[in-house]
Amino acid sequence: MIPRYSRPEMVSIWSPETRFRIWFEIEAYACEAMADIGMIPKEAARTIWEKGSAAKFDIERIDEIERVTKHDVIAFLTHLAEFVGPDARFIHQGMTSSDVLDTCLAVQLSRASDILLADIDALLAALKRRAFEHKNTVTIGRSHGIHAEPTTFGVKLAQAHAEFSRCRERLVRAREEIATCAISGAVGTFANIDPRVEEHVAARLGLKPEPVSTQVIPRDRHAMFFATLAVIASSIERLATEIRHLQRTEVLEAEEYFSPGQKGSSAMPHKRNPVLTENLTGLSRMVRSYALPAMENVALWHERDISHSSVERMIGPDATITLDFALARLAGVIDKLVVYPENMMKNVERLHGLIHSQRILLALTQAGVSREDAYRLVQRNAMKVWEQGADFLQELLSDPDVRAALSEEEIKDKFDLGYHTAQVDTIFRRVFGAA
Amino acid sequence: MIPRYSRPEMVSIWSPETRFRIWFEIEAYACEAMADIGMIPKEAARTIWEKGSAAKFDIERIDEIERVTKHDVIAFLTHLAEFVGPDARFIHQGMTSSDVLDTCLAVQLSRASDILLADIDALLAALKRRAFEHKNTVTIGRSHGIHAEPTTFGVKLAQAHAEFSRCRERLVRAREEIATCAISGAVGTFANIDPRVEEHVAARLGLKPEPVSTQVIPRDRHAMFFATLAVIASSIERLATEIRHLQRTEVLEAEEYFSPGQKGSSAMPHKRNPVLTENLTGLSRMVRSYALPAMENVALWHERDISHSSVERMIGPDATITLDFALARLAGVIDKLVVYPENMMKNVERLHGLIHSQRILLALTQAGVSREDAYRLVQRNAMKVWEQGADFLQELLSDPDVRAALSEEEIKDKFDLGYHTAQVDTIFRRVFGAA
Amino acid sequence: MIPRYSRPEMVSIWSPETRFRIWFEIEAYACEAMADIGMIPKEAARTIWEKGSAAKFDIERIDEIERVTKHDVIAFLTHLAEFVGPDARFIHQGMTSSDVLDTCLAVQLSRASDILLADIDALLAALKRRAFEHKNTVTIGRSHGIHAEPTTFGVKLAQAHAEFSRCRERLVRAREEIATCAISGAVGTFANIDPRVEEHVAARLGLKPEPVSTQVIPRDRHAMFFATLAVIASSIERLATEIRHLQRTEVLEAEEYFSPGQKGSSAMPHKRNPVLTENLTGLSRMVRSYALPAMENVALWHERDISHSSVERMIGPDATITLDFALARLAGVIDKLVVYPENMMKNVERLHGLIHSQRILLALTQAGVSREDAYRLVQRNAMKVWEQGADFLQELLSDPDVRAALSEEEIKDKFDLGYHTAQVDTIFRRVFGAA
Amino acid sequence: MIPRYSRPEMVSIWSPETRFRIWFEIEAYACEAMADIGMIPKEAARTIWEKGSAAKFDIERIDEIERVTKHDVIAFLTHLAEFVGPDARFIHQGMTSSDVLDTCLAVQLSRASDILLADIDALLAALKRRAFEHKNTVTIGRSHGIHAEPTTFGVKLAQAHAEFSRCRERLVRAREEIATCAISGAVGTFANIDPRVEEHVAARLGLKPEPVSTQVIPRDRHAMFFATLAVIASSIERLATEIRHLQRTEVLEAEEYFSPGQKGSSAMPHKRNPVLTENLTGLSRMVRSYALPAMENVALWHERDISHSSVERMIGPDATITLDFALARLAGVIDKLVVYPENMMKNVERLHGLIHSQRILLALTQAGVSREDAYRLVQRNAMKVWEQGADFLQELLSDPDVRAALSEEEIKDKFDLGYHTAQVDTIFRRVFGAA
Repeated sequence: MIPRYSRPEMVSIWSPETRFRIWFEIEAYACEAMADIGMIPKEAARTIWEKGSAAKFDIERIDEIERVTKHDVIAFLTHLAEFVGPDARFIHQGMTSSDVLDTCLAVQLSRASDILLADIDALLAALKRRAFEHKNTVTIGRSHGIHAEPTTFGVKLAQAHAEFSRCRERLVRAREEIATCAISGAVGTFANIDPRVEEHVAARLGLKPEPVSTQVIPRDRHAMFFATLAVIASSIERLATEIRHLQRTEVLEAEEYFSPGQKGSSAMPHKRNPVLTENLTGLSRMVRSYALPAMENVALWHERDISHSSVERMIGPDATITLDFALARLAGVIDKLVVYPENMMKNVERLHGLIHSQRILLALTQAGVSREDAYRLVQRNAMKVWEQGADFLQELLSDPDVRAALSEEEIKDKFDLGYHTAQVDTIFRRVFGAA
Repeated sequence: MIPRYSRPEMVSIWSPETRFRIWFEIEAYACEAMADIGMIPKEAARTIWEKGSAAKFDIERIDEIERVTKHDVIAFLTHLAEFVGPDARFIHQGMTSSDVLDTCLAVQLSRASDILLADIDALLAALKRRAFEHKNTVTIGRSHGIHAEPTTFGVKLAQAHAEFSRCRERLVRAREEIATCAISGAVGTFANIDPRVEEHVAARLGLKPEPVSTQVIPRDRHAMFFATLAVIASSIERLATEIRHLQRTEVLEAEEYFSPGQKGSSAMPHKRNPVLTENLTGLSRMVRSYALPAMENVALWHERDISHSSVERMIGPDATITLDFALARLAGVIDKLVVYPENMMKNVERLHGLIHSQRILLALTQAGVSREDAYRLVQRNAMKVWEQGADFLQELLSDPDVRAALSEEEIKDKFDLGYHTAQVDTIFRRVFGAA
Repeated sequence: MIPRYSRPEMVSIWSPETRFRIWFEIEAYACEAMADIGMIPKEAARTIWEKGSAAKFDIERIDEIERVTKHDVIAFLTHLAEFVGPDARFIHQGMTSSDVLDTCLAVQLSRASDILLADIDALLAALKRRAFEHKNTVTIGRSHGIHAEPTTFGVKLAQAHAEFSRCRERLVRAREEIATCAISGAVGTFANIDPRVEEHVAARLGLKPEPVSTQVIPRDRHAMFFATLAVIASSIERLATEIRHLQRTEVLEAEEYFSPGQKGSSAMPHKRNPVLTENLTGLSRMVRSYALPAMENVALWHERDISHSSVERMIGPDATITLDFALARLAGVIDKLVVYPENMMKNVERLHGLIHSQRILLALTQAGVSREDAYRLVQRNAMKVWEQGADFLQELLSDPDVRAALSEEEIKDKFDLGYHTAQVDTIFRRVFGAA
Repeated sequence: MIPRYSRPEMVSIWSPETRFRIWFEIEAYACEAMADIGMIPKEAARTIWEKGSAAKFDIERIDEIERVTKHDVIAFLTHLAEFVGPDARFIHQGMTSSDVLDTCLAVQLSRASDILLADIDALLAALKRRAFEHKNTVTIGRSHGIHAEPTTFGVKLAQAHAEFSRCRERLVRAREEIATCAISGAVGTFANIDPRVEEHVAARLGLKPEPVSTQVIPRDRHAMFFATLAVIASSIERLATEIRHLQRTEVLEAEEYFSPGQKGSSAMPHKRNPVLTENLTGLSRMVRSYALPAMENVALWHERDISHSSVERMIGPDATITLDFALARLAGVIDKLVVYPENMMKNVERLHGLIHSQRILLALTQAGVSREDAYRLVQRNAMKVWEQGADFLQELLSDPDVRAALSEEEIKDKFDLGYHTAQVDTIFRRVFGAA
């Protein structure tokens, strides 16, 4: 995580202030539950809540205590006791540090997910708006980077919309994966803590109780969470790559917005580069890479070891902050994307009609020519276009074998762009529910 | 994929025979639909189905054709035409190779998922049986590899059961991700193929139509699929690691079944090694690694490039076959695991009572000692046990500061194993619905 | 590893036949050394060598024995004894299975490295030949996919040559990393085996003795080896990506060779796709992914665990066979690449002179204009070209602020392609030692 | 990178202050060279050097300019011009931003490498000291976590020393990989900049000129660099894992230093956990993960795209800072490691003599028993020890088949620990050059 690729709301989730505030809430809610079931005095629970709520935690002081105890939760509790007074001895009874740490992480990742969901919603909105705007903007479809057949720019964006809708669903599930609460004690047996405490804290924090924790919440949940972010990042990379391609000098069908005063190159004043989407490509690589240590974290030793902790201190913020930034940047790129329909049409025409080769092939087979023969007939005329820059229609018209099967009119009839966009509404209805 | 780590049922999904058979079915179902909507003669569709069904495809012959065409689907279609005769020209009309390839992959991955789901079910059954068998087998819980507090071996297995239940749910969703059908033509516009063909083929093959394909089914689906397998592999690694730990010479609380005639080492005849779970650790690494290229496959260029293909030809079989083998092996290990409850109890006693330190800490705070003082009191007695091998109970009884707060009986009362297993039924009810 | 992406010479390194032959040689050389130092009878060593050399190992039989012993080396030794007779008891004395397995892997990886080195040499030769052929073929240099300034196609290939020369050096070092021999016994202490045996076997097999083995050769060596292959794969991906870009319909500066009879698409007979380089992109992803489990293999438990073994059984063949295939395919692509210098020139001219923007910028600053002002002057004229398709030279000539600093002749003088290729010989001398 | 796992010297390499200072030096050295060859006035070069050296760059101001230009190098140059005055127009002539950025990164990674090399040296020193201290401390060697045969703790540390010596060599080479300088202009053709400028800047900064750069230094270099760090991290994980195992309650052969005041658990005051080595395990996962995006950075489009930049802004600091911290922490752990030779000996004796099984096997074969029979004889006695806790020596002495081949004295003679440590000096000489 570096400031350059960070947005404040997501950053604040990972601040020490937020963390200590959540820790306090977990402890205070736990005391509330313990008081309810008669384990500690109700008065103590109230005092803890009030004094802790009013406290302004001193991060320097906590760090100072940690330098001696080498234990962050104990350092925090010691500092909290300085505000709460004697009743502090009722805090954390029968709990273990991980009860606090893991439940806090669940809260942080849930909040982060909410921001990411909102980010995806914003991206989906931009994609939808631009998709309808360009529903009928004809552009060439490309396989292998080579012109295939026409499609529309709206269909391209509809595809992206469908893909990010899937990403949204995955993120909803990933959020469910990690939104659990564990207050189960040293090895998860509830020996020193009543399971009702866990249920209460979970309910107050909007989490579900973890069915079996073993001091820690099992890390397969977090692995699934970060793997999901990695897949989302891969979809970002796909759309970013599309735009980078469209902006290539030779293609120039769309362009990232280039603001007044912006400079593309220190050396070459003529440059306007797709730097935002290139940047997104790099950020996607980063978010993807964080899935790996998250998966390696799963196989903790016995009831837990602490190897996952350093990883999560890093990838917790790094993955969510970077993905938040990337999604927001991508939404902005789509929103302001400069589209050049006339260049799209110029490119459509670049292959001198070759993009209609399949229709001729089908027409030939429908006229009784075998598939193999039809293919050879079309290919031999197509290759002349490739190699000599000839016009495909003219070549076909003057090929006697083709003409034996198809009339001039039948052939000309196949060179029709409208044919290719006839089902655009069907696709839009599938994606957006309406065309 | 190597024979050593393969099981025949999963291997057969990936054989050329299976692949060509599925390709044929896709083409034949498509013809069926085209005949229904009047695009091709009904008689032709019937002939195609009958002759193709009866055909025994010759893989050598297909390979031979591919060496010329450098295109596998065309090679197959050419070979199919040799069986079908003139009506073959109605096959594949308006379709593109990826319609066949991607839909076939969806069928293969769905079938593979079904096997993997059955594997997980077998593993869950083994875990459940052994969990109930050892519901009350007391064993030490360990954090950081260091004795913490007692739990039961059944709780350990219940945790694994809960984890693999989650894996099962994830796999069900991953299966849904990839179970889609695309018959949408060269760039997904349905220009040359009616969307009803796709719907029909999907229904016959138990798939859903892909909302927007662009010649290919979007690869975020496959990325999510392989990422899910990677997470499952990580859970396998966790359980395998647990068993490897339990079998260590110094721990020896459980042991993989060692068959008559088996040899542990070529040099040392005394050896009995946890080779199956070590092997599972390695296989997990492999399955995990396949998620990466699957994610890199997402960002195909424009409507598609073919970079994903070689990756999937490798990881399709490799990931599913290896995971199938690993899950089955793990189920066998759990099923036959030799458990040593008496060694578990011996280990429980190894720390001379230190494992009760938290209860003393809590008792002291409940008796009015501050948390910080109580911690210091308990820790100073504990360290004597660590360093001089003393008995924790005796040390506590002879510590005047401890005794100022707690009576002999109160202290002795805390050294009670039963206290730690009191909530085992609660945990079992959470996991298994019943204790 | 799948046949589609395999070449026979590399495949044969990983066959059971080759493996058992190497195992035999290791055992026989060890006996030779033991006989030399008087540990076993010289006659026995000779018999072992002769009978083993003549033996045709029966792989089925070995598998059958392994099914009982669950130990591959013991199964082999049992089978070997069937050929050697009573003297077989002198084989493997004081050795452990890993002495055989790890030394064998070292031999296999060394041989694989030799093939890969030859592959790189062939690629370097093709790159050099084509680089000199196109040393002065002017083409546009692109940053961010946007035209920057001219370069030559030869310089592009020279860069690739320099990069693969580095890959070659890295591979030489990676080969050194893994070319070690361990014959050190059960935990590497040489308790039951004289260190001279290791030295002898190493010398006979062209390896170096491993300074400290602990039953196994340390896996940091293999991690470095596979990481190096992964980096080489990444360089393959770079060059493959370049060619894919050059073949795009809108660019079409070069094209993969398209053979007679080849078909680019089952649907669209006009297609000629860069399928080889797209395939290389996918294969690169695979080779890269194998580095991860190799790195996870390093942290074996204590003197060794066997988790690395399944990984290496898979990635040993998979990584080397795939990389061999990829390097050979890439060399072929370069060798037969169809280059279109006239299209290159057409593209150079596409931006109406904008590619000379830096020279104007420099000329303005040299004429006394501040860098910031000069940049603004050039950029404002450049943007007119971008937005209105104007001609850059004309815009500059009619801009009074530009003309205040530069004369018509000075401006025109800057629109000179030759200026950009003046240092090509310098670059060639750096890369090839001569221009 | 987070403060918790950072050391100031490494952090300072990545500060904006350091970066801008290096940028300035690159520009100023370039001016120096340009003045030497008469491209710009000598006086200007001197002024630039003097005013820039004296300048205190205002990071806020640079950020402010970048917000408009969206280009960091231009922002810096604009700010630099504010100090230098009119001569600023001679700065950056014919250069491109990447000339500055990539050469700066080379300087930063070189400096980071120097710190890492010093870290490894400190670790090697600690390992050597402790290895000699425990050269003859007998401990059990373990394969598969199961007791194998004795070794010494010194040998374990000697192995680690040999491994980190290899890491050091790899790092030296990795440093060479990235220590190159590119001052070659917009697409690397030296069109606007004399190659002598690059040579001069390289020499002044202790770098080598990059043979062919294409605006950027090729990223295979950086991929190799970060892959090397990943391998080093894997070796850290190995040694950390060893210590974690040794500290397990049941093993307790060594322990991380536990400082006065330290607390192992918030709940259980008795705990002393190997938290430093567990932490190192997690940090290793992180450093390993950074190799992936570095490899994905290699395949930049054409002469360059900027996708690598965001990745490097993150992993440049993250990987080097984390590895620096981890190496230093590991050196400290080794340095202060508390070793328990008496526990090691207790563990050696735990298997009731089984660890001598190989010697009996060898003695039997040397006495004429076939390998297979000898194996069976030893194994059947060994299994009694495993299963009934019998004493191996007694079982052997009372087995008539064993006694038929070996006398009581011959058998007893094999139960000798000294036998296993006879070659320790050989191993030490190999690793340290002297025993």
